[in-house]
Amino acid sequence: MRTLVLGIDGYIGWGLAMHLAKRGHTVSGVDNFARRANVESVGSQSAIPLSDMQERAKAFKRIHDQDLSFFEGDLLDYDFLADVIKQTRPDSIVHLAEQPSAPFSMIDRNHAIYSQHNNVEGTLNVLYAMKDLIPECHLVKLGTMGEYGTPNVDIPEGFFEIEYRGRKDILPFPRQPHSMYHLSKVHDTANVMFACRVWKLCSTDIMQGVVYGTRTDEMIDDSLMTRFDFDESFGTVINRYCAEAVIGLPLTPYGQGKQKRGFIDLVDSIQCLTIAIENPAARGEYRVFNQLDEVYSIAELAEIVATVAKKLGIDAEIKNLENPRTEKAEHYYKVDHENLRKLGFKPTRKIQETVEIMLKDLSMHKDRIVEKSEAILPKTKWYEDPNKQVAQPPSPVTKIQKG
Amino acid sequence: MRTLVLGIDGYIGWGLAMHLAKRGHTVSGVDNFARRANVESVGSQSAIPLSDMQERAKAFKRIHDQDLSFFEGDLLDYDFLADVIKQTRPDSIVHLAEQPSAPFSMIDRNHAIYSQHNNVEGTLNVLYAMKDLIPECHLVKLGTMGEYGTPNVDIPEGFFEIEYRGRKDILPFPRQPHSMYHLSKVHDTANVMFACRVWKLCSTDIMQGVVYGTRTDEMIDDSLMTRFDFDESFGTVINRYCAEAVIGLPLTPYGQGKQKRGFIDLVDSIQCLTIAIENPAARGEYRVFNQLDEVYSIAELAEIVATVAKKLGIDAEIKNLENPRTEKAEHYYKVDHENLRKLGFKPTRKIQETVEIMLKDLSMHKDRIVEKSEAILPKTKWYEDPNKQVAQPPSPVTKIQKG
Repeated sequence: MRTLVLGIDGYIGWGLAMHLAKRGHTVSGVDNFARRANVESVGSQSAIPLSDMQERAKAFKRIHDQDLSFFEGDLLDYDFLADVIKQTRPDSIVHLAEQPSAPFSMIDRNHAIYSQHNNVEGTLNVLYAMKDLIPECHLVKLGTMGEYGTPNVDIPEGFFEIEYRGRKDILPFPRQPHSMYHLSKVHDTANVMFACRVWKLCSTDIMQGVVYGTRTDEMIDDSLMTRFDFDESFGTVINRYCAEAVIGLPLTPYGQGKQKRGFIDLVDSIQCLTIAIENPAARGEYRVFNQLDEVYSIAELAEIVATVAKKLGIDAEIKNLENPRTEKAEHYYKVDHENLRKLGFKPTRKIQETVEIMLKDLSMHKDRIVEKSEAILPKTKWYEDPNKQVAQPPSPVTKIQKG
Repeated sequence: MRTLVLGIDGYIGWGLAMHLAKRGHTVSGVDNFARRANVESVGSQSAIPLSDMQERAKAFKRIHDQDLSFFEGDLLDYDFLADVIKQTRPDSIVHLAEQPSAPFSMIDRNHAIYSQHNNVEGTLNVLYAMKDLIPECHLVKLGTMGEYGTPNVDIPEGFFEIEYRGRKDILPFPRQPHSMYHLSKVHDTANVMFACRVWKLCSTDIMQGVVYGTRTDEMIDDSLMTRFDFDESFGTVINRYCAEAVIGLPLTPYGQGKQKRGFIDLVDSIQCLTIAIENPAARGEYRVFNQLDEVYSIAELAEIVATVAKKLGIDAEIKNLENPRTEKAEHYYKVDHENLRKLGFKPTRKIQETVEIMLKDLSMHKDRIVEKSEAILPKTKWYEDPNKQVAQPPSPVTKIQKG
């Protein structure tokens, strides 16, 4: 089958593209390299060195004997997108080409507008291109578990049947997103749902948990590795903890760390996306998969990372920071995630195993993390009350092991 | 109190600005005249001739002895907006400055992107300007009843308490919007709700029904009239029926006409907005008012207009058209609208009275409607199935009484 990966140069996109090509998909990809530029703009870099896209594709050919077609361009450029679609005629489009960082979206007005503009209008272009050119194509769209927020009831997969004042209906589950970025994904969800209902497009909307890990089975050579971000904006929580551990910084849960989130290993995220692609939604169908494996509090995760680090001879302290985000400190969190399991998803890793691999991989690139360690601690706050007494400054950076 | 009306040149904005000024508010207004340009772009014009903004303000001063400050500019220009806010320091901002037409947003990709871009990013600029410059200001934001769609349960005012699998929560009521325009309003709702929760802004989000009518108490001179659109895009259903009746066209409900909607008279809409402005939400509060007076099916409305027309000697035929929109043909519709009544809202008109005034006002401008009568019947379809047999062409335009 023909699969077009939007955002092929990204953390998940690159691994997914290789995995699908190895499974026999004819894979094409699009990227505008915004992620590389955005990470640089916040003063950071991928901990793991990256080949450029041409080198990656060449290395993949050399090592795995598979082809990948690549198109450099921006989804906001409709004519470019339409040309790519006309050339590649995909059966599935996997849309990973969004600005994926909550803190980045909360830096200031420009970053908020950029996040919503880029994500929402890029997705609108994808929907119109599908409607006009390939209405039978299946859109696998990356959303986030953060769209739901933290309600005091179970979180179903997209929809729930309710009884209200004696009448029943099946309704979209209400979204209560945490940031300008999460809001952009909620807007996408509404737009995609509409396109399926009205234009008979079909889509699987993936509400994904936090992804962690450094490698997939195809990453058997330095030239085939995917990016690994550890900065405040683009480093997700486990990735950030592992980077902190490797360079001797304390692990830094925000607040008390009792916030619970869903998590999934990079390899298993790619397994899930593959299942979605290979079991497409029906024409006119809009379905939601909650894509996560396990739920932890971020304090529990810090303990897991510290324990694995200790085994490897790294003493990682845990030091809670004042929470820069506005989110519930403690909350109920129970999430349905049966749809993918019903289609065959089986988690393949224990989190401890993956954290061990991550710490080893990152140890080889300690210098690159140290070089940009200023980018790790949070500087972007969701809200600053001008009348508020300053509670405590963020913990100073201590104990950086140089070199 | 100081009130800033964004979209002061619009159908509601102009009447509201005059009403507030007469009540003693210090009123400023902003407009970029997009509505005038957009109506022209679909080949139509206001049935009632309009003065330009300078003339309007001068006439208002002459006739009512009140001042209005006007700033021409675009909400997408943040520096402009910030300058206006610094100069006017409003206690309330009434945000009516959005592209308000569902069919206009569904013309093509460009119109969809324009609608979401203009509405969502304009509102984001308003929110950031409030946060940075006037965090205590009250935002009265115009949404639409169309955000909710037509669920099979009662529609509460924004939020509902539910029990789900034995647990309870108060959640935002799910939105199921009908068009790219309605989606833009849903995105706004999510963004405004977030700004209130996280930045402690305060807002009243108005889910307004369809507004109808030609005049308010302040419109006692030709130079003070507000616009009246009758074209497919900008003419709401009763306004369109009245224009059709006046020039001898059949009244044209879409489909069987069993779709129910909430309606409110222009005068009462302004009364409601005034109540919201003068009874502001508390700091950090996000509240929703469902702003409508009565619920009718659009077939019932056609009957009402035909009956009133007959009284005035106009024989108005009713001719149902194939529905160009994708919407439920028949559905449950029960809407809470108690919040405004609790604050003192009392509807002042019967729909029959207003329709009679509308038909009389429009009869004076019959020529202007005839001149643009091509713009009345729907050309924009929500969805065209390439495989579908053509069912029946839209009814031909007949019986236009020239002159």
